[in-house]
Amino acid sequence: MRRLPARADYDPAVAYRLFDEAVMCHVGYVLDGVPYVIPMLHVRADDRLYLHGAAGNRTLDAVVSGAAVCVETTLLDGLVLGRSAYENSVNYRSVIAFGQGRPVEGEDAKRDAMTLLLRRLLPPGRLEDVRALSPRELARTKVIELTLAECSVKVRRGPALDDRRDLDAPVWAGEIPFLSVLGTPRHDGAGRTDIPAPAFPDGWAGPPNPR
Amino acid sequence: MRRLPARADYDPAVAYRLFDEAVMCHVGYVLDGVPYVIPMLHVRADDRLYLHGAAGNRTLDAVVSGAAVCVETTLLDGLVLGRSAYENSVNYRSVIAFGQGRPVEGEDAKRDAMTLLLRRLLPPGRLEDVRALSPRELARTKVIELTLAECSVKVRRGPALDDRRDLDAPVWAGEIPFLSVLGTPRHDGAGRTDIPAPAFPDGWAGPPNPR
Repeated sequence: MRRLPARADYDPAVAYRLFDEAVMCHVGYVLDGVPYVIPMLHVRADDRLYLHGAAGNRTLDAVVSGAAVCVETTLLDGLVLGRSAYENSVNYRSVIAFGQGRPVEGEDAKRDAMTLLLRRLLPPGRLEDVRALSPRELARTKVIELTLAECSVKVRRGPALDDRRDLDAPVWAGEIPFLSVLGTPRHDGAGRTDIPAPAFPDGWAGPPNPR
Repeated sequence: MRRLPARADYDPAVAYRLFDEAVMCHVGYVLDGVPYVIPMLHVRADDRLYLHGAAGNRTLDAVVSGAAVCVETTLLDGLVLGRSAYENSVNYRSVIAFGQGRPVEGEDAKRDAMTLLLRRLLPPGRLEDVRALSPRELARTKVIELTLAECSVKVRRGPALDDRRDLDAPVWAGEIPFLSVLGTPRHDGAGRTDIPAPAFPDGWAGPPNPR
């Protein structure tokens, strides 16, 4: 597969939109010289990401140590088929950002960050329908604020860049889009069973792209 | 969101199956003490992943330096809705592996690795229908073999673990699956236009899960 003709973009606003579209990010940090990459849910506000984990989760200590952290997320948009083995690719949008993490302290600040995250992930109105976070639950939650100091976006779009000599090959060439959709909700079998499954109002199509 | 009741599994066979299902991985490495995470396509063979890039891509030098590399991939299976703000989650399958990279040298070895990768990503039979990789194209491609020395899998499945006191809440609770599907193929408008789009034979549903 050939070198992707992707263009780098260092505009933070472009990077922020990608973080807003992706449901998950991949957080890299260094511990004793060894690289670690862990998947996390995130929400962005201005130039910051909020992440969370269990209060007892020691893995997150390295993320809030003040050392450099790398956070990456990638949306795969489609498979690109060309007319040679070389000219195949994927279309994607990817962001790599560097920043520093710090713990969010205090019940109110933690509740604010978790509310941002939950509003982003849950169906509209859901947060109003369920029991609110209790002080004890917030105490059990570690919340991290990651300030994005430097962002780099790469995007590959469009068809393969076939060599002119391959254009007459008797094969179809183009792009096959990847789509993310929601399946049929499955009730958990507990509690009340007389309540219909969520109808995903206002065209809600699930949380940001699960890829 | 509560601490995920995910169970860790250190069986390499379980980790290998996850790498086989995911189309993309996230490769972490350290350069001058700074962590980097980059998205890459991969294919697995035994205890090794094969990655690739352009021959001139300096980013990959750190991956083949022999220093420790971390490679992570995560499949998101669904959104878990509980009866409180706290008891929401995502179901996922994730693997984190550590290993060492080395460059694959020699035209034949590079062709073998790229053929493995292409067979995994392209529709069945496609590789036989297009022009094969030329020696010049292989020379322009850097191929990396990453030996997986240590793997850790985490899986979260099932509904939310609602507190008994929340079970009578008048809300629906359960899981909403995330699905990945293929969209309608878009021809690139070049070359021959009399060839029908691929029909995805043998139940082929796209390359491994694009999430």
